[in-house]
Parts: sequence; structure tokens; C-alpha cells
Amino acid sequence: MTRARPLPPAARAIVSGDRRALARVISQVENREPSAASVARALYPRTGKKPVIGVTGPLGVGKSSVINRLVARLRDLDRTVGVVAVDPSSPYSGGSVLGDRIRFERRVDDAGVFFRSMASRGEVGGIAAATREVTRLLDAAGFDVILVETVGSGQVDLAVRDVATTSVVVLVPHLGDEVQTLKAGLFEIADVFCVNKADLPGADVARRDLAELVGLGGARSGWRPRIVATSTTQPSGIEELWSAIEAHEEFLDRTGARRADERRRVSAEIVELVRERVGRELTRRLEREPELRRWVDRAVERTLDPHTVADRLARALGSR
Amino acid sequence: MTRARPLPPAARAIVSGDRRALARVISQVENREPSAASVARALYPRTGKKPVIGVTGPLGVGKSSVINRLVARLRDLDRTVGVVAVDPSSPYSGGSVLGDRIRFERRVDDAGVFFRSMASRGEVGGIAAATREVTRLLDAAGFDVILVETVGSGQVDLAVRDVATTSVVVLVPHLGDEVQTLKAGLFEIADVFCVNKADLPGADVARRDLAELVGLGGARSGWRPRIVATSTTQPSGIEELWSAIEAHEEFLDRTGARRADERRRVSAEIVELVRERVGRELTRRLEREPELRRWVDRAVERTLDPHTVADRLARALGSR
Repeated sequence: MTRARPLPPAARAIVSGDRRALARVISQVENREPSAASVARALYPRTGKKPVIGVTGPLGVGKSSVINRLVARLRDLDRTVGVVAVDPSSPYSGGSVLGDRIRFERRVDDAGVFFRSMASRGEVGGIAAATREVTRLLDAAGFDVILVETVGSGQVDLAVRDVATTSVVVLVPHLGDEVQTLKAGLFEIADVFCVNKADLPGADVARRDLAELVGLGGARSGWRPRIVATSTTQPSGIEELWSAIEAHEEFLDRTGARRADERRRVSAEIVELVRERVGRELTRRLEREPELRRWVDRAVERTLDPHTVADRLARALGSR
Repeated sequence: MTRARPLPPAARAIVSGDRRALARVISQVENREPSAASVARALYPRTGKKPVIGVTGPLGVGKSSVINRLVARLRDLDRTVGVVAVDPSSPYSGGSVLGDRIRFERRVDDAGVFFRSMASRGEVGGIAAATREVTRLLDAAGFDVILVETVGSGQVDLAVRDVATTSVVVLVPHLGDEVQTLKAGLFEIADVFCVNKADLPGADVARRDLAELVGLGGARSGWRPRIVATSTTQPSGIEELWSAIEAHEEFLDRTGARRADERRRVSAEIVELVRERVGRELTRRLEREPELRRWVDRAVERTLDPHTVADRLARALGSR
């Protein structure tokens, strides 16, 4: 059982529905400010019960339109929604244009929707960690459903499974050669395939190809990925998309997979956090301690290779 | 001093110029086969003397054309060249099309050029490590100059400084808003700016803007980034580009920066390798050891947050 401890003021504000406090702490998470850590720790016991729906796929398939329609559908069902969009597009883009676009389409005064796009400078691990913290803040803030959009890079997309309870992969007709590589990557991620732009020619073929591939792949731990065709211009298929997502969420509860998945995610998170701490500490010591500096010197001078040095340091650090 | 140990057969073949052996071991590195590690270790003492030129920049600026021209220039100067192109474009693309294109333009029978494109599935850290190993194989294989091309995602681009002795950032005229974000990211990377497609209107303005920004930034550790305008269609500026690269390489030797940079790179590599080992070991133990499993359970049950668990585990692992 969780012992109730008094919440820090910012955490209390978030729980009570203060959206400005929520936005402020999200910014602190984004900027890796230490103040965010204590809020996140305090709110952690209140998290982990909400569906977190990851929406991923190649650039240009209309992920943000799909999300926009999903949000509208969820509002029709009287569910509140928190959305976080991660833009991994590097130092070059710097953009949160996407976020502004979605916000533009939503009613600004709808308190049942909260949208936030995050820049994603820095290393991928850091982005995944920050995204996870933001989904938890949205969870603690009381939103019924949390949507996470990741854009573009395969690296970040793969991390979606470390955050989401259900992962939706959005594709378009005419996948061409991509289907081949999809097998390797996205089939490990997708709980639901969304064939978007289903009004384009070739949608039926794409759907059939996918169905065949899903059939070949077999059911991952008892769940066979669903395939839904959508169009965001018509719009059509959005209800079916949400039903497929809900079916997966029900599957998680029915089979006990929810707890197993959560365990896998938390375990991976803990490993990553330990790696981070060990790396930070070792970097510091390699700079300061003469004895450790000499190990680096040996690698620089080519008398020992980095793998051998790493083996010895890892052992010296007590990691058997 | 390095004690001479007998080389494993594959390593001996690479050193003696056997290109098929080289290609084979590169594939092993790419697939993380353990056999590659012993070859890499054995060859490590023979590495670290060659210029490794990183070429990076946004998609569509013509990086591969610039590299193609640079290779031709280096061949005119009778220097042999090993090229490795990293394609970070995710599970979706799976492509080494780029590699084929460049290879097409080069004479197939020129033993003085070796080209290899690498898929980049998996996590960014792993790609950076594999790229580093491949540059070392090319180094040990005796190429005079090693070129590393990274495509697209900012995440991987940033890692170029962990591999290259000189980093070239390729841009095009009309950078627009990108210049703002460039300041944050690419100015930390670039030793040389290459304004490509200099035959397009706006090239002079782009060059002047860059010069101004470089002026504002000041010289990083005594080196002020050079700016070169190139066109690969004319072609023009390629000789100047190589001269700028050589000037930086000479600067590294003259000032002792080469050793300091190498120390920074090797140190970062060792930290990453230790992180990897610690992570692997901890993952294993979190699955197997009941006492450690209970720590994960507490986080899953929300009685302890992952940061607190990580703090305790990191301490228990001996990382003070």
C-alpha cells in the first residue's frame, strides 16, 4: 500500500486540475529541471491506471489528423484526453508547428482536452524518459485517455512500446518495399494497424497485404494485431479505430497482460535510470581520479582497447 | 608500447588489403556478431592515426554528392579512401540505396576506394558504436582518409563528433528559420561548413549569415569554423573544401588538440561501453534474482518510484 504523503504544491495543483501548473511542470520536465523530479516522484503513486495510446508511423501518413479525429471521438464519448506529441526531428527543425495545428482545430475552451508538443533535442533515451514523465503527469492530472504521438524517426518510434499500453501504427496505401522492412520493425510494435487515407486507391490491397503479414506473424502473446482502415477527410473508420484500441485494452485486463507489460516497462525504465547514473558517475570519476584517468590513457595510447578497459571498469564498479 | 600479438586470420587478411575479408567483418559488426569483437580488439593498436572526416547535415542538401566529389578529389591526390554511410532512417526505409548510388558513380575496379553503407536499425548508441568500429576497420585496412556520412536525424548527427576528427556540416542556401536552431545544434559540431548548391540564388547571403554566426560564436578551443561554398553539378569548391578539412587536421596536430579530442572520444566510448555492460547485467539480474525482482515489484505497485529504486540499485551496484 502507498502511504499518503503530503504533496508538494505543484503536484497538488496538477491533481486538482490546474492546467497552468500542469503546463509549467511539463516545461520543467522538458528542460530537465530538478524541480520536476520531486513533483514526478510525488505523483508516481497516482499513476499507472490509464490507457496510454501510442500513435506512430512514417512521416506523412497523417498521424496528427488521426489523433485529431480520435480526440473528437473520445470527446463525443465524454472522455477527457491528454495528448503529447514528440517531434524527434533534430536540431534542424526545432518545431512545434504540429502542436499548434492540432490545437487550432480543437476548441480552445475545451477543458477536457490538453495538448502538448515536445521538442526532442538531445539523446533519444532522454526523450523517451521525458515523454514517459509527461504521460504520468497527464495521468495524475486525471485525463481518462492519454495519447502519445511520435513522428518520423524509427529510433524514437521503437521506444513507444516503453511508454504506451496500446500502440497504433499508422500507414498509408502503397507501402511498396517498406512492407518488407516493416516486418522487422513495426510488427513488434503494433497492437493496431491503422491504414489511413483509405479513400486513396490501393487501400484494399494494403489492408489485405497487412492482414496476410499479420497472419504469418502469428499472435504476439495471445493478441493478433487488428487492422482498421480510416480516412480523416471523409471522415470514416475512426469509431472502428477506437473500438480496436479498446479491444486491446480489454485484452490486457482480461489476460493479465497489463501487469506483465507494465512490469517489463518499469523494469526497462529502472535499468535505463541506473545506466544513466552509472554513466554520469563514471564520467565524473574518469575526469578526476588519476587512477581511472590512466585507464583512459592506455586506450588512447592503444596499449589496451576500450572493450577491455570497459570490462575491467565494469568489474571494478561491482557489476560482477 | 604495444606488444605485438599474432593477429587472428580475419584481422591479418584485413591488414594485408583483402577487401572481401574487410566487407565480411563489417557485416559481422553490423549484425553484432561476437566474432567481430575479437578482430576489432586485435586491430585496435593499429588504429587512431588516420583522419576521420564526418559529413553531416539535413536531408536533401546533397551530402552524398559532396562525398562523391571529395572521393574523386582525394583519388586525384592519390589518397585512398574508405567511406561509411550511416542511414538512420528507421525500420521504415531499410535502405542502402544511397550506397548503391555512390558506388554506381565510382569506378568499380578502383581498389583505392572502399564504400560501405550501413543500415541503422536498433538504438542510436548501438549505431554509433558500430560506426566507430567500422571506421577503425577501414583505418586498419590502410585507407589514407576515412569519410563518414550520417543522414537525416539530428540524434545520430550529433554523434558524429564521437567518431570524426573533423566534422563537415553540409547546408544549402535559404536556411530560413533553421539558422536559429542551427546555432544550438550544429555549431557545436562543425569544424567546416559546406554551403552546397552554391549555384542556387541566395548562396552568398547564406554564406554571409553563416560567417556572421561563426563570428558571434567565437572560436571553439582555438579553431574558428571555416565556410566553403560548393557545387557538385558544376563542380566547384571541392578543392577548397578539402583544403579546409586539411587545415583543421593540421590545426589538430599543431596544437595538440588531436590528442585531447581523442581522449574525449575514447573516454566517452568507455563510459558508453560500461553503461552497456551494467545495463545488460542488471537486466539479467532483475529477471533472475528474487531480491532484485522485488524492487521492480515495488515500482509496479507504486510503493516506490523508479527513480528511488534506481538510486538504491546504483548504490548497491557499488557506484558510490
